[in-house]
Amino acid sequence: MRHVLLGEGPRKTFALIFDKGDEVIRETTAFARRERLTAAHLTAIGAFRDAVLGYFDPARKDYRRIPVREQVEVLTLAGDIAVKDGEAQVHAHVVLGLSDGSTRGGHLLEAHVWPTLELVLVESPAELRRRSDPETGLALIDAGASRPGNQ
Amino acid sequence: MRHVLLGEGPRKTFALIFDKGDEVIRETTAFARRERLTAAHLTAIGAFRDAVLGYFDPARKDYRRIPVREQVEVLTLAGDIAVKDGEAQVHAHVVLGLSDGSTRGGHLLEAHVWPTLELVLVESPAELRRRSDPETGLALIDAGASRPGNQ
Amino acid sequence: MRHVLLGEGPRKTFALIFDKGDEVIRETTAFARRERLTAAHLTAIGAFRDAVLGYFDPARKDYRRIPVREQVEVLTLAGDIAVKDGEAQVHAHVVLGLSDGSTRGGHLLEAHVWPTLELVLVESPAELRRRSDPETGLALIDAGASRPGNQ
Repeated sequence: MRHVLLGEGPRKTFALIFDKGDEVIRETTAFARRERLTAAHLTAIGAFRDAVLGYFDPARKDYRRIPVREQVEVLTLAGDIAVKDGEAQVHAHVVLGLSDGSTRGGHLLEAHVWPTLELVLVESPAELRRRSDPETGLALIDAGASRPGNQ
Repeated sequence: MRHVLLGEGPRKTFALIFDKGDEVIRETTAFARRERLTAAHLTAIGAFRDAVLGYFDPARKDYRRIPVREQVEVLTLAGDIAVKDGEAQVHAHVVLGLSDGSTRGGHLLEAHVWPTLELVLVESPAELRRRSDPETGLALIDAGASRPGNQ
Repeated sequence: MRHVLLGEGPRKTFALIFDKGDEVIRETTAFARRERLTAAHLTAIGAFRDAVLGYFDPARKDYRRIPVREQVEVLTLAGDIAVKDGEAQVHAHVVLGLSDGSTRGGHLLEAHVWPTLELVLVESPAELRRRSDPETGLALIDAGASRPGNQ
């Protein structure tokens, strides 16, 4: 995986360019920790040669694993980076397109790129700092860091 | 549902944080009317315990109702707020992820949150004012409020 | 198809408003060439009366065609404009909602609008210039035009 710093200043923007076989979640997480990112949102385009989706089972409070063992188009990928237990965590949801035009989707646990994926990562402004919600794993806005509403 | 005003000035940004059991469309509509929002776009992340999707049937000029009676991940949720018959209306499309990784999608008529949903609502700049199209219910750019193109 | 120039300056923003029966990819491509756009990203809302999706078959290095011969809601449409062989090309992925709430998705090869589609097209800043990757057809960030990262 290579990366390009697209813009500096109060809000950094990075493009992460993945190569054939790269695993997306592990490499993005490592990048976020190396760059000391604590809050960001991300989107991506490209394709995977395989993926593991997750469905959050409220009864077990854990993700059920759904393997997708074929070449798929990434139709949407959107997510966040937030801090959980002191470390940056990536949370992303995807919709994948299969060879017959059907789709699969869920929380993205793991995916191998083929032939390419490009992920754009935008640091969040201070007022949009997020933290990982322990119950759901979702990166939620940290109301303590925000100006409260009057309701 | 609680809310946080994330930024003020020419374009207000709000985060609406929904709690277990909250109904999304009704609460978002009520919020928009209370805050006198006339044009905004919105996105959300989270999960529903059930939802009712709509498919616009051109022959009947109305939505066919498609109930989804199970816990689902919100893979994408994107929409608009626009004024129709003098009142703010919410129009949103979703793609939902089921427990086996299959997806359902459509116009969002109604959904109950479980355990959480966070919706970010950004007021549109004046040149992007939208109005609700009577034929389709879509929030379309009001060309009268915009600078016309030369075609 | 009509269009409205929503904002000028360093980054032009256009809204393309499609009419019943308009073909999306051909008209958007013609518009981009006429306006000499070389890099932009786009999103859209609306509905199609039919579409042809594509799935990139790595073995054949070409798109398999997947016709969708019914009225569908456009649940997500996101893409890019980039230059390939000296000419602007449109690359977009869609997720479509069918009458029973099921979805189809893929690369968008062709689609006829019914009753309306509104596409917002935002010119990219210079540091986000994209070029079409010959192997995949994806509009990738042109690292040569960007500030390189240190990895």
